This record gives sequence, C-alpha cells and structure tokens, in this order.
Amino acid sequence: MNAGFLLDPRLSADTRPVARLDLCEARLMDDARFAWLVLVPQRAGLVEVADLTPSERTLLWHEVDRAGAALQAVATCDKLNLGALGNVVRQLHVHVVARREGDAAWPGPVWGSGAAVPYDPTARDMLVERLREALQSPR
Amino acid sequence: MNAGFLLDPRLSADTRPVARLDLCEARLMDDARFAWLVLVPQRAGLVEVADLTPSERTLLWHEVDRAGAALQAVATCDKLNLGALGNVVRQLHVHVVARREGDAAWPGPVWGSGAAVPYDPTARDMLVERLREALQSPR
Repeated sequence: MNAGFLLDPRLSADTRPVARLDLCEARLMDDARFAWLVLVPQRAGLVEVADLTPSERTLLWHEVDRAGAALQAVATCDKLNLGALGNVVRQLHVHVVARREGDAAWPGPVWGSGAAVPYDPTARDMLVERLREALQSPR
Repeated sequence: MNAGFLLDPRLSADTRPVARLDLCEARLMDDARFAWLVLVPQRAGLVEVADLTPSERTLLWHEVDRAGAALQAVATCDKLNLGALGNVVRQLHVHVVARREGDAAWPGPVWGSGAAVPYDPTARDMLVERLREALQSPR
C-alpha cells in the first residue's frame, strides 16, 4: 500500500507521530504556539494533491476533516486553517491548524511566522495522546 | 440553490469574477505578483469546510483541483499552494495559487506578504478570459 514511502526528514524533525490513518500519517507540529497537525499521505513520490488518485483525494480531504474535528475537540479553536504549500518541503503534506484569536501569528498565517517553540515533552505527549483518541473516536 | 448567498465585500473588492462553477464562484485575486484564484462556495453562512455537506465538500475539492489545473494551464507554476484560512474574512473561501520559484513571496506564503500590485486592466481581462476558458475545458 505504501511501498517506497519515506517521510521527508525535515517533516520528521519538526513533528511527532500521532496516528496512522487510512491514507495519511497524522503528526503534531512541535510548536506549542499552535495546535497544529500535519497530514502526510503515505504514498511515494507525491507533490501535488492532483498526484493522488480521485479516491485517494476523497480520503485525504476526509482525513483533513477528521483532523480538524480532533483539534476542535482538544484545543481552543476560533478558526481552522488549512494549507497545502510545499514550497520548501515538496513531499505532499496538508497543514491543519487550530487558530485562536490573538495567537502568536493572528490574524496572519502560521507559515513563516517566527521560530517554533517546542513543547514541554510531558505536555506534548499528553496532547498527542488526546489527539490520537480524538482521531480514532467514532464520527 | 444559493438563497441568501452574498459575497463578502472585502473578497469582492480584492478580486474579479472569472466563472461560476457548480458550487463555487471562482474569482481572480487582483494581484499581478501571483496567478491566484479564490473559490467561494455559493452558500450562505459558511465558515469552515465542515459547514458544507459531505457531497458539497467533494464538489469543493473537485473545483479546487479544476482551479489548480487551470492555473497550471495558463501561468508558470512550480508549485500550487492551497489555503483555507478565513482569519480576517470569515466567509468560507479557498485560495489556489500558482507559485513560481523566486516570486515576490517565495518560499513563504502569499498571505500577509506585502501589498497587492493591481493588474493592468487589459492584462487582467485577458488572464480572466484564459482562466475562464481553462476552467470550462473538458477534464
């Protein structure tokens, strides 16, 4: 199913694993300023969403919906932000970010908005666990 | 179908109409620095993608794919950027942007990256026409 898939080392370094969904690996951005998931379709060689098959695209956006709902369940969220940029890391990945009015980048985008503030490891592990549970709860 | 739908006046002021698709109105951002479409689902009261029905969500992402293909057909595009933010204008809208290496915001995001540079009206009208044709061509 995911022959040849390797997570880009920059994505790997910036994030922590949360859950493997049907298509995507869901990972938490290690930046305590924002509750921020990154979804990476577990297929080799993807750059654009259009590189997925139509049924995989449907699955991708369904998993983005699930990620948004999980963030809303465990974090304060005034607005979800979705983004697929890939200007630096070309491996296809979708950002799903819970934004709070007045957060460190508000109302601008999180991308390119200063340096990440790594989580305290205990707080991060608790958040990962809560997100994992929320992602796997019935929908 | 779109009872009560009114385009947010800030989106209206920043963009020019290109085409009405099945769900979305496709509009060109009036910023000559980037080939940039904004898709606005023609439904009243939407804020998050999750506010759409499941079938409307499928249609939204299909139209985002169409918009990306249209931009790739008429503009130089090294990478598509997709975004749904809505931190300032809450009416649900999805950005589809053709990015070029070395463009005015590269490799950062286009959102919040300086002031728009309005198109020359003739060039803008030509681009709108080419995008309209590309959006309506068989896929």
